Amino acid sequence: MTVTDEYLSNNRAYAESFSGPLPLPPSQHVAVVACMDARLDVYAILGLGAGESHVIRNAGGVVTDDEIRSLAISQRLLGTTEIILIHHTDCGMLTFTDDDFKRSIQDETGIKPEWAAEAFDDLDVDVRQSIARIKASPFIPHTDSVRGFVFDVATGLLTEVV
Amino acid sequence: MTVTDEYLSNNRAYAESFSGPLPLPPSQHVAVVACMDARLDVYAILGLGAGESHVIRNAGGVVTDDEIRSLAISQRLLGTTEIILIHHTDCGMLTFTDDDFKRSIQDETGIKPEWAAEAFDDLDVDVRQSIARIKASPFIPHTDSVRGFVFDVATGLLTEVV
Repeated sequence: MTVTDEYLSNNRAYAESFSGPLPLPPSQHVAVVACMDARLDVYAILGLGAGESHVIRNAGGVVTDDEIRSLAISQRLLGTTEIILIHHTDCGMLTFTDDDFKRSIQDETGIKPEWAAEAFDDLDVDVRQSIARIKASPFIPHTDSVRGFVFDVATGLLTEVV
Repeated sequence: MTVTDEYLSNNRAYAESFSGPLPLPPSQHVAVVACMDARLDVYAILGLGAGESHVIRNAGGVVTDDEIRSLAISQRLLGTTEIILIHHTDCGMLTFTDDDFKRSIQDETGIKPEWAAEAFDDLDVDVRQSIARIKASPFIPHTDSVRGFVFDVATGLLTEVV
């Protein structure tokens, strides 16, 4: 029995008290971009209700072409206008460098990834440059409310990066 | 007052009963790749506990270079071995085509996105090709348990794509 099987069992219990369907467009017009970290339950951290806001997540909560793609679809087709970025303390992205990670992959597989690993050494600096990537994109129409935060995995609190 | 401000207020309430910190590596060694859709509370749908599993999300729950990047970091640096993919019924990605979406952006901004929008017209087919992209990647070492599902937004149930 895998963990996947256990989660499927949880899903059957979840469905028993499920009430749906809700509408497709997010009712609160927000898109969140957060790290994939297992300790970040974004719905709980922000008190998101079902159907309220898009949640985009990846290693680091960084902004690459795929987040620009998701945000463009979120804003242009589904009506969101606010963006919330969330990095967090004790992040794995602080523990390595792109060069070392890509070299280790090349040493093992013979192939160097053609993508950046997007490691960073300063949370606030990376939040700011993630915001800058969004604001520099010609494809994201609504950038009046793009705010970035660091989630503290010890306290549960978000602190805004200014 | 923006929705972002309301969510920050929710966060202060969340932190009052928060107990942390948990360890960085996911305790259940799973990475989930799901759509950003606002109705998918992945923690609730799978019964994920805090600190258990990585959660990666984007428009569609598709697999692009950025998901390969996140999965490579998840498996190679943080010890995950199982992957769960989640698409869902009533998905926005079923409602447009790449060509039309990119043309509308070009018409408005004068610039055609250099990325694919990743729209699809069949959920099961796209889950299968997302699994195929993961298995075809030289950078993802653990592909013995890569399973894909469609979440029904009307019932709350996951159905496996085989």
